[in-house]
Amino acid sequence: MRTTTGWRATGPAQLRRTTLERRDLRPDDIAVRIDHCGICHTDLHTLRGHTPDARAPLVPGHEFTGVVTETGPEVTALSAGDRVGVGNIVDSCGVCAMCEAGQENFCHSFPTLTYGGTDRRDGSTTLGGYSREYVVREAFAYPLPSGLDPAAAAPLLCAGVTVWEPLRSLGVGPGSHVAVAGLGGLGHLAVKMAVALGATVTVISRTPDKREDAHRLGAHDLIASTDTGRMAAARDTFDVVVDTVSAPHDLAPYLRSVAMDGTLSLLGYLGPVTVEAMDLLVGRKRLSSAGSGGRPSTAEMLRFCAGNGIAADVEVLPSSQVHTALDRLGRNDVRYRFVLDMSDLD
Amino acid sequence: MRTTTGWRATGPAQLRRTTLERRDLRPDDIAVRIDHCGICHTDLHTLRGHTPDARAPLVPGHEFTGVVTETGPEVTALSAGDRVGVGNIVDSCGVCAMCEAGQENFCHSFPTLTYGGTDRRDGSTTLGGYSREYVVREAFAYPLPSGLDPAAAAPLLCAGVTVWEPLRSLGVGPGSHVAVAGLGGLGHLAVKMAVALGATVTVISRTPDKREDAHRLGAHDLIASTDTGRMAAARDTFDVVVDTVSAPHDLAPYLRSVAMDGTLSLLGYLGPVTVEAMDLLVGRKRLSSAGSGGRPSTAEMLRFCAGNGIAADVEVLPSSQVHTALDRLGRNDVRYRFVLDMSDLD
Repeated sequence: MRTTTGWRATGPAQLRRTTLERRDLRPDDIAVRIDHCGICHTDLHTLRGHTPDARAPLVPGHEFTGVVTETGPEVTALSAGDRVGVGNIVDSCGVCAMCEAGQENFCHSFPTLTYGGTDRRDGSTTLGGYSREYVVREAFAYPLPSGLDPAAAAPLLCAGVTVWEPLRSLGVGPGSHVAVAGLGGLGHLAVKMAVALGATVTVISRTPDKREDAHRLGAHDLIASTDTGRMAAARDTFDVVVDTVSAPHDLAPYLRSVAMDGTLSLLGYLGPVTVEAMDLLVGRKRLSSAGSGGRPSTAEMLRFCAGNGIAADVEVLPSSQVHTALDRLGRNDVRYRFVLDMSDLD
Repeated sequence: MRTTTGWRATGPAQLRRTTLERRDLRPDDIAVRIDHCGICHTDLHTLRGHTPDARAPLVPGHEFTGVVTETGPEVTALSAGDRVGVGNIVDSCGVCAMCEAGQENFCHSFPTLTYGGTDRRDGSTTLGGYSREYVVREAFAYPLPSGLDPAAAAPLLCAGVTVWEPLRSLGVGPGSHVAVAGLGGLGHLAVKMAVALGATVTVISRTPDKREDAHRLGAHDLIASTDTGRMAAARDTFDVVVDTVSAPHDLAPYLRSVAMDGTLSLLGYLGPVTVEAMDLLVGRKRLSSAGSGGRPSTAEMLRFCAGNGIAADVEVLPSSQVHTALDRLGRNDVRYRFVLDMSDLD
């Protein structure tokens, strides 16, 4: 085994700096020195529900960038010194129909999660990116295109591809009308990407004081979700509504704003949702959901972002301030993504 | 006013033959002698919940065929003697975006229902097709193409267009894999239409003894919904699942059978539905719903059915046996649609 340093959970939303073990490199593995790791809402959610368990240790973090430091003998596409990113899955069965279609995120035998997953070969619990080093199969590390700032690119690996897949699979492009509900870590990337894809973009936000930000990000309009008049006027308007609101909420107002044969895509809240079938029927609306992405679309998204100057708006903190970042994320006090700088772990 | 004879509700699921009033023809109205009226599940549902109310009289029936007997002075497309059909809506605002798009069924100020609706001009409650005559705006009566049997065509006007719109809007055609859940009034028409559109069709039924019927209707396969092995094997298989089951039920098994970027369309049950967002996310599934249809697609559906020899499998009863038909429909004892012959009302 190899050792590195990282932040391991010791209780609900409590982390302690500690030494971690990483596996020795398998033939198709690379070792990555993690420089920057984004803080995803999932991290907060998982940490809050965590009780220490020696058999299932928790080190969060599943959107990070860094530099390859070592490669196994069968690694062909990456070399020491390459800049790479890793997202929220690090392995999959590789042989099911979904893996063959390049949708490893939907692997029929479940993809191996970057943290809290079970390694397919040795059965160990995966430990995430709040650490200085990660060992990962080459196939699940993505070369970071030049031009992408490594700190601002880290959130692309989870938040970025989570908004990219629905925008792409729903055919967003020039002429599309897209609404983004909720302007946070996911939402601000959805705005940037949809604008770059050529869509006309409207932000729907509880917080009208984000209007200036919305325009700066490229949105053409902002509707306060509490403005019932404007919400009513938006009926049947948007080809795609990307709903990034991370708490249970009434979907009816968003469904009403979807255009005929358009789609409301749920990204932020992934529990049970209830809708009136009539709210789908009238105006012929579709409800969908998205999260994570396959290998091809992750690579495509990184190229698109590099080519269009897109990355997350980040606030970079040394990893020692992880508790501050988590507390503030819990209060939505970040525009728009915290990224931990891992160099203080050396 | 004009008078006719029909079946009016006198209590829950109780009807009495009685004289009914119809309006005098307006300039754009036609009078239709109703020969055949299908019995829709909606009729049963409405009748069961009905308490007699003089201000809101109830005469069910919203899928009927007959012959034009008289035309108003501004009627241009229809003449006395023409065979026509009428479905579940008889008017709409005509000026909203949905009406302009030919989706009068989604009219923003709500379409006028064929029964239990409120006439847009005189405010009266509309009385349905369990009667010998109906007076309707020309625009909401559809010429019945030659070759369609008038009894077997009656259910096309509601059940038919209800399955036609989702099949068409979801792009079903050669190469499509379609599943039809529930083989009843809606389901058997969905099978016929999807097959005629070129799809490979699988029936999912609680009742495996419908296998022979399913094949006779053109389906290529039948899966018993209780066969967990075959349902599991059907994961990610169908581009479109048309769910005609008319009671609340777990959508998860059907969602799992939808192919990536495919759609589960709810036709049979139109109340609140709850799904796990994860069941939409994994494999990228869409949930939708459908019911009724706009004028253009209703006309298109009738032409398609005439051209492909499609109509409902019906059991025709004299209208005096309406209670028998309703009782048996309540027990799903019909293959696959009851149609009342109205000639006994003369």
